[in-house]
Amino acid sequence: MTPSDTPQSHPRYTSLRIRDRIVDGLRRGITSEHGLLAHGRGEAFDYLVGERTHAFANAAIEAAAAKMLLAKTPVISVNGNAAALVPDDLVKLSRAVPAPLEVNLFHRSEKRERLIREFLVEHGADTVLLPSKNYANGVDSNRRFVNPMGISVADLVFVPLEDGDRCEALRAAGKEVITVDLNPASRTAESATIAIVDNIVRAVPILSRIVQDLKATATPEELADNIERYEHTTVLAAARRQIVDKFSV
Amino acid sequence: MTPSDTPQSHPRYTSLRIRDRIVDGLRRGITSEHGLLAHGRGEAFDYLVGERTHAFANAAIEAAAAKMLLAKTPVISVNGNAAALVPDDLVKLSRAVPAPLEVNLFHRSEKRERLIREFLVEHGADTVLLPSKNYANGVDSNRRFVNPMGISVADLVFVPLEDGDRCEALRAAGKEVITVDLNPASRTAESATIAIVDNIVRAVPILSRIVQDLKATATPEELADNIERYEHTTVLAAARRQIVDKFSV
Repeated sequence: MTPSDTPQSHPRYTSLRIRDRIVDGLRRGITSEHGLLAHGRGEAFDYLVGERTHAFANAAIEAAAAKMLLAKTPVISVNGNAAALVPDDLVKLSRAVPAPLEVNLFHRSEKRERLIREFLVEHGADTVLLPSKNYANGVDSNRRFVNPMGISVADLVFVPLEDGDRCEALRAAGKEVITVDLNPASRTAESATIAIVDNIVRAVPILSRIVQDLKATATPEELADNIERYEHTTVLAAARRQIVDKFSV
Repeated sequence: MTPSDTPQSHPRYTSLRIRDRIVDGLRRGITSEHGLLAHGRGEAFDYLVGERTHAFANAAIEAAAAKMLLAKTPVISVNGNAAALVPDDLVKLSRAVPAPLEVNLFHRSEKRERLIREFLVEHGADTVLLPSKNYANGVDSNRRFVNPMGISVADLVFVPLEDGDRCEALRAAGKEVITVDLNPASRTAESATIAIVDNIVRAVPILSRIVQDLKATATPEELADNIERYEHTTVLAAARRQIVDKFSV
């Protein structure tokens, strides 16, 4: 089973090529088997939103970029799928903000954490934090382990492809959370401060570029205006409508 | 990463346990990495239909059972995910109809075909056909290989979890097709003769039981009535409405 197994005539060709990055990640030990399944769920929701970046996602990206630039101690949380899909863009984003990358896995494995760090360093990352034994209240899974220099002291965490429990626990701990989640009805999307309902493969490159643009040109007041314009409920409702339209008879 | 990594408090606990069968299938060499991704897509759609068997699925199952009993040369097509998820129920269905099982993979591998056959035989299967080099017109992928004693001469094929190309090619070859597909807008569901929009884990046990019941009690006229009552477009529209309701704001 190689990428060449998929004929170009197949209507899901592009989606299948993105998928090959995840399969490659599994072979490298970066993504887990459960990560493949999670990616499959993402594919389904991407199909539902028409596999493109909508206005509701761009609005969230604009606000997210401003929030990351105004944060005091922002951290970028990276799991196996995020690393496998957009390593270069996460590194660019980390440098542009700047914000450290922190490896954070649902299915924890010290070996996989180390492999993800090495993979990100190969892609140019300066600092990649790994989890320690610190406890984040209320997260009933391996993600309770966070780095004392990273997520545990962060005022803002960018957590693409995040689990609902984790997102809610970070919010309960008083942190602002920006997520990338293709399901606008997920607990992650609903509990986040800002939810980018888009494919990480499309969203993170845009986010990284807008962070760079705003950093070069925007005043703190303009950044605050960007954030002010974002309406979480409205954005999620627009994303839900997109899915409803897809399935209306 | 073991099943026990998932805390019981997790809201997707049941879904995660079903998933473990697929992960186990990967380790046995029965499912492919792409199969894990496909299962993830299925999980997303199952979440959208509320993870239960609806009236629209039961209507399709009733008609499917009757059609399988009235068919002259029915065949049950089995891929890696179907084998990993419901081996016992596929064997029961195969005996009840009766209809041979035929292994048919999107990402073809002779080794995997052999492992799936062995797995089904372990679960009590009598006959498991494997693909040969026969060509089914219009299928631009490895699924063009079918067994000359099985799918190629079948008047009806039960193909749970099928690819759109393949389903359309079987229809174009004049065969009746019954599928299990959680996406009511997929080409597979639309082009099938009967589409059971339900999780294979719930649908195949019901189908197997109804086949046994009808076989014991129903007259050919009653079977024909069951089929007559099934309205493909109405069933798919009802399934779409279920998803729309889930996302309506």
